[in-house]
Amino acid sequence: MYTIRCRSCRQTVTDETFRTSCPSCGGGLEFAYPDAAWKPEANSRTMWRYKDLLPVRPHELLVTLSEGGTPLDRPVLYPDIDLYIKDETRNPTGSHKDRAMSIAVTKAVTFGRDTVMLESDGSTALASAAYAARAGLRSIVVVGRGVPDYRLLPLVVYGSHILEYQGTPAQALDWVHEVCRKLDIYETSTFRLANPYTMEGPKTIGYEIYEQLGRAPDWIVVPVGGGATLEGIGRAFADLHAWGKVGRRPRMAGVLTRGYDMLNEALQRGIASDDELRAMAPDPGPETIQVKIAMTYAPDGLEAMAAVRDSAGCFVSVSDPEALAAQQVLGKLGIYAEPSSAVALAGVEKLRSMKHIREGESVVAVVTGSGFRETGTLAGRVQCQRTPVDAACGVAVIDNLLGR
Amino acid sequence: MYTIRCRSCRQTVTDETFRTSCPSCGGGLEFAYPDAAWKPEANSRTMWRYKDLLPVRPHELLVTLSEGGTPLDRPVLYPDIDLYIKDETRNPTGSHKDRAMSIAVTKAVTFGRDTVMLESDGSTALASAAYAARAGLRSIVVVGRGVPDYRLLPLVVYGSHILEYQGTPAQALDWVHEVCRKLDIYETSTFRLANPYTMEGPKTIGYEIYEQLGRAPDWIVVPVGGGATLEGIGRAFADLHAWGKVGRRPRMAGVLTRGYDMLNEALQRGIASDDELRAMAPDPGPETIQVKIAMTYAPDGLEAMAAVRDSAGCFVSVSDPEALAAQQVLGKLGIYAEPSSAVALAGVEKLRSMKHIREGESVVAVVTGSGFRETGTLAGRVQCQRTPVDAACGVAVIDNLLGR
Repeated sequence: MYTIRCRSCRQTVTDETFRTSCPSCGGGLEFAYPDAAWKPEANSRTMWRYKDLLPVRPHELLVTLSEGGTPLDRPVLYPDIDLYIKDETRNPTGSHKDRAMSIAVTKAVTFGRDTVMLESDGSTALASAAYAARAGLRSIVVVGRGVPDYRLLPLVVYGSHILEYQGTPAQALDWVHEVCRKLDIYETSTFRLANPYTMEGPKTIGYEIYEQLGRAPDWIVVPVGGGATLEGIGRAFADLHAWGKVGRRPRMAGVLTRGYDMLNEALQRGIASDDELRAMAPDPGPETIQVKIAMTYAPDGLEAMAAVRDSAGCFVSVSDPEALAAQQVLGKLGIYAEPSSAVALAGVEKLRSMKHIREGESVVAVVTGSGFRETGTLAGRVQCQRTPVDAACGVAVIDNLLGR
Repeated sequence: MYTIRCRSCRQTVTDETFRTSCPSCGGGLEFAYPDAAWKPEANSRTMWRYKDLLPVRPHELLVTLSEGGTPLDRPVLYPDIDLYIKDETRNPTGSHKDRAMSIAVTKAVTFGRDTVMLESDGSTALASAAYAARAGLRSIVVVGRGVPDYRLLPLVVYGSHILEYQGTPAQALDWVHEVCRKLDIYETSTFRLANPYTMEGPKTIGYEIYEQLGRAPDWIVVPVGGGATLEGIGRAFADLHAWGKVGRRPRMAGVLTRGYDMLNEALQRGIASDDELRAMAPDPGPETIQVKIAMTYAPDGLEAMAAVRDSAGCFVSVSDPEALAAQQVLGKLGIYAEPSSAVALAGVEKLRSMKHIREGESVVAVVTGSGFRETGTLAGRVQCQRTPVDAACGVAVIDNLLGR
């Protein structure tokens, strides 16, 4: 079993009903597990391999689409560092968010809920919609204005209701959070004060990296939007360290979108409150193709900052041209990542050229989401060159390509 | 080790160089393995679990992106039959073709080739491009005229050269096959006379189904384009039957696109030659969204017909509205399939309503490819309805959705 406690006042709370925060002080909730809970199930190929470390009771029926258990790939790219790709594109809806959502929707069923709702036009929306569909729950997805159809059509296939909030995504996020409270709707947004259960998904990425590598890497490089993914992976290694499995924790590096690098500045300035963090939001933020991570306010930003600081890590920020270039580099390794996820590799490149990552070090880049969901972003940005050929000229064109 | 022999004259050939057909009689080549080759590697999560049954030497360096090892899902959909989904959408480039291509590109490296080429604008192109990228080989993809950009942009990310043949896909296919012979280019088209190694990929789907289910299902329902996928899965169970692992073979059902159902007619008429099959091609075939399987000529069609006939199976054909409806049904189970793959479920539905599949029978539908690669097909065909909401009206809209 597990216990739930408030991160602020340390009070223990129960989860007979869905709680998003401490009933006494409003603090965020976290989970604690028995000491002997690390016993990966040898036969499981999914993240439920770690079910004793996830906040579900053993007798519950899992809502699962076989999430997690993703490959740790080892492409040959740099001569001087030992690079691994944690390939989260292989999840059911193409991203790491499926891990959080398998837990969150399982809990929704446990709590007897019939509807889930969130603000997202990206990976979290796809995951929420797919798992809700699987569980037979009603799914409501709220998006900001002007999201292209290609990003929403899969939600239609999953059977979601799509509401377009007449404002920015950040305004929609706040509105959804407020409406879910007011109407008692189960929120599947993946940040601690919206849904603490979702926070337990990302740590399974860390557990898997440990098992696949047999040790802790020197670095883990993670794209950062709201902050929960980096925090969770960092926490996994804190767990493994506390259990005596690894001698030291990896340095956690967070990759931010250029122009949305408030967490870096906040870390430098020692910012310690959400209000201060929120006040740093650019308004509006610059246009970017890194839509999945470019958030004006990171709801779990303080936790991500702590994970970076406590592991002697750092933040780096990546421009759109750098994100597209990294996407092409990953493509040449046979991995099609979306730009917002390819930034993990751009971050590695940056840390390597800054000599933060040193010769001989082992580095895991977490490639969070698949490019197939975001081919639409490339239209007009990546040239789709096709050379016309026919029976008359074709052989000459090919000979030329082959350099013959 | 394995041996290679001609399916027509039974002569044994070697693979010191790449051969696409029998040097004596031009017949197709097949592989034979030692009797004790069924020894799945317990620690492998990919299709290379069956490496002793794949035509690579043990010492070869595999070109792999962790293909295969896909989930066998068991959604609750029908009350009267035991349905499983073999979820091939979870492969590296989103389809079962990755299995064939991991073998084919591994062999290209073995043969010292520096270029691969094929005609395809679909799953096979993506797989060829990705594995070639991974192996550091040049990739040439030839497409017919007028393929939309969204289908080609991922190939650009993988670094392929795209040639647009000024004709139909069928003409381009013939041209590519001829040019590959003439210029001695390694062809990665997935049919026996183009590349016999590719034929060994689909059988690993069958081996996995057997291991995941612990027995043979009553039916396996497979979308059929060129025919190799159905043939390979059928052959896997023929193997398992010969080895005494299963008491009987599953009935193989092939799902064809309406208007491209020549294999069904050919089976009824007892057609036994490729020339006759080719002569049945509609010219041009009707417009369809099932672009991945709607082929005017099925290069491995005779083999697929034999697999259907020998297992007491059948062919069914599916219209575009039925394919789209099946896509939505799968979506409600949390699986986003492309229309050309969702037809597997449409086929099950048809066989069930025709009472071919009977009460209590176990049925595996092979969902071959992910919808995320084909969201572009849905534009204008699936309505992307979004309801505008704001702070004033939003709660009322949601209350209405909830039926409150």
